[in-house]
Amino acid sequence: MNQKTNCIVAQSGGPTVAINASLSGVIKGAMQLNCFENVYGALNGITGILNHRIMNLSEKAKEDASFLSKLKITPAMYLGSCRYKLPEVTKEPEVYQQIFDFFQEMKIRAFFYIGGNDSMDTVLKLSSYGKSIDSPVVIIGIPKTIDNDLYGTDHTPGFGSAAKYVASSLLEIAHDTYIYQLKSVTIVEIMGRDAGWLTAASVLARNEYNQAPDLIYLPERDFNQEECIADVEELLKHKDNIIIAISEGIHDDKGNYISASQASNDQFGHSQLSGAGKALEYIIKDALNVKVRSVEINVLQRCGAHLSSLTDLDESVACGEKAVELSLENISGVMVCIVRETQSPYRCSIGYADISGIANEVKHVPQNFINARGNQVTSEMVDYLLPLIQGEPEIPFKNGIPDYLNISHLL
Amino acid sequence: MNQKTNCIVAQSGGPTVAINASLSGVIKGAMQLNCFENVYGALNGITGILNHRIMNLSEKAKEDASFLSKLKITPAMYLGSCRYKLPEVTKEPEVYQQIFDFFQEMKIRAFFYIGGNDSMDTVLKLSSYGKSIDSPVVIIGIPKTIDNDLYGTDHTPGFGSAAKYVASSLLEIAHDTYIYQLKSVTIVEIMGRDAGWLTAASVLARNEYNQAPDLIYLPERDFNQEECIADVEELLKHKDNIIIAISEGIHDDKGNYISASQASNDQFGHSQLSGAGKALEYIIKDALNVKVRSVEINVLQRCGAHLSSLTDLDESVACGEKAVELSLENISGVMVCIVRETQSPYRCSIGYADISGIANEVKHVPQNFINARGNQVTSEMVDYLLPLIQGEPEIPFKNGIPDYLNISHLL
Repeated sequence: MNQKTNCIVAQSGGPTVAINASLSGVIKGAMQLNCFENVYGALNGITGILNHRIMNLSEKAKEDASFLSKLKITPAMYLGSCRYKLPEVTKEPEVYQQIFDFFQEMKIRAFFYIGGNDSMDTVLKLSSYGKSIDSPVVIIGIPKTIDNDLYGTDHTPGFGSAAKYVASSLLEIAHDTYIYQLKSVTIVEIMGRDAGWLTAASVLARNEYNQAPDLIYLPERDFNQEECIADVEELLKHKDNIIIAISEGIHDDKGNYISASQASNDQFGHSQLSGAGKALEYIIKDALNVKVRSVEINVLQRCGAHLSSLTDLDESVACGEKAVELSLENISGVMVCIVRETQSPYRCSIGYADISGIANEVKHVPQNFINARGNQVTSEMVDYLLPLIQGEPEIPFKNGIPDYLNISHLL
Repeated sequence: MNQKTNCIVAQSGGPTVAINASLSGVIKGAMQLNCFENVYGALNGITGILNHRIMNLSEKAKEDASFLSKLKITPAMYLGSCRYKLPEVTKEPEVYQQIFDFFQEMKIRAFFYIGGNDSMDTVLKLSSYGKSIDSPVVIIGIPKTIDNDLYGTDHTPGFGSAAKYVASSLLEIAHDTYIYQLKSVTIVEIMGRDAGWLTAASVLARNEYNQAPDLIYLPERDFNQEECIADVEELLKHKDNIIIAISEGIHDDKGNYISASQASNDQFGHSQLSGAGKALEYIIKDALNVKVRSVEINVLQRCGAHLSSLTDLDESVACGEKAVELSLENISGVMVCIVRETQSPYRCSIGYADISGIANEVKHVPQNFINARGNQVTSEMVDYLLPLIQGEPEIPFKNGIPDYLNISHLL
């Protein structure tokens, strides 16, 4: 490639706090290697390419010396997102033609798509189509998801920060809980409908004085209400305040989510009104007649950039840089991945994997990371998780709130 | 007073992230002025005095050089809390006698009680009783509450940090929201059942690119569903994503809380299942047929010490120190208060006020801090709030999570 060609990058799926770090890595990598004339960004994912809504990111970085460093710590998608799924090429080939016409018109030689499972489906489809028409455009996926459920990578960019947010919050909730001398149960509901990685990360809240969460339930095991009640009852014999971490996706052995309509005595009506945490609150209250409250760790677990993992952000930048390097080698139809080289000391390298085994798959927590009774995670899980939440980036503040990058172009 | 006497301090009510900063101020002040032989702490509020559960805080500070600095940034109550309300002295005089006997036995010359409205009731009752028996023990209240609803003080310790947490979270939720190109409404429910100060602080999320929250509803005004729906509908004509900040305590003109049972089409059953945010979610969804979600800013708004206001923590320390100074002047039956000396530059002094006009009262948001339609706060509110969230303390981290003070003595 040479300086007369350009590259384009887009972001898709749900927010994380590291997805802009990967974007900054792409821009930084392309500028340092001086391999593209312009780094364009498509607004709102692949739809920005279909609608010709693009911005010049390398120009931005040249104009503003703080652009890349601020981009690295800004949460959610600087370029906006979309939930658009590419149609099958056999059904609507004109969509593909439109995209590759755009690439040609804009002298695009590489397209980088930062996203999760669905976005990797787009990478798979576009790279297959590109091959079929002998397009010179390289298509590369860069992973991101707080769910950590992508195959092909040791862990996903964005997960470490969400894990740090969850673990730190859990510790703070423990401080909030331990102040009263009365029997109580606190249920903390954590994101991750199909994969329990993020809920498992609550285990990292434990330290020399805090053993919470006392119980951890992941969607990789069927949730048994009676066992849970028995476990809580037993714990309450020895301890006043019990804290339980549950995934939003816990379900019974028939696959039914534990939600309001599942809760005991069935007074709850509209099941959409409440999730697993609220439902379990009522189940335990009815069974044990103790004070129970539920706390939903809200969207801040995926957008609370003020509490990010520096390890995560640095790795996310490296993933973006790696994508640029791969494009120079004409490697297409792949996803950048993180390879854990050594566990102690923790050291990773950035590699890549063929996209076909990754797109549309979900990587669940392996069974040996969960104890036999399904109410704890094992030390293997802790060893896996702990390095990912290390380090704190410097977050600039202005007027008392975080000073993130201006996103008015999305409004 | 002399070095042969002691003082005792306790904490009560709900958590804030600054209540330990005030505690550290008491210990620091007493040690610097060298006016008490020991600073004792009673565990779980006034009940610790009744049950003789105390610890020696000045010893702790002498043994561990980092004790006071770590205490300053540790959330919730290091000494634990209670919800115990002192009985009327006419009904159970023996409780009072027991407390003052304990004071005499332990050579206590000053009792400092850090808390909110209910705790100030304890200060009022104890100081009145003390006067009636000519006790030499000085009784002083130190305010704290995230609700900012105490009279006698410009603002309460703990409020500025909660306000910073709410404003920063709101900005991050805006980043999370603006990524999609589709009409959506996000409702953010904030604590404060009777007073809207904390919900009002969401206004500080506005910056050069973010105008959210687009609407702000406080419990100081009756909530009118039809007006709210009309306001949202009008805003959606010009803007894709609308963010609404509401207090958990919003209510209609008959005083009924906006909760699940109030929501349209009445399918919701159990009203305890959901608060104002969830109820308004369903109300707007039914009325406007757009994507609506609700986010409850959870207990982290009161215990998320990783995002505290340095101004708040410093003032809280100063309040603790002032309490010790007042005790040396034998000033009893008062609450320490913060006096705003100048607005620009913001400068405060620490004073005190008679407890009788403070206990059991609620300071609401004044009507001129809210616009005529009751869906915005005024610039007077912004001017009042802005100085309180300035500055970020250094929070130490260990193993990827905040390194707070060990609270195993509460377990």
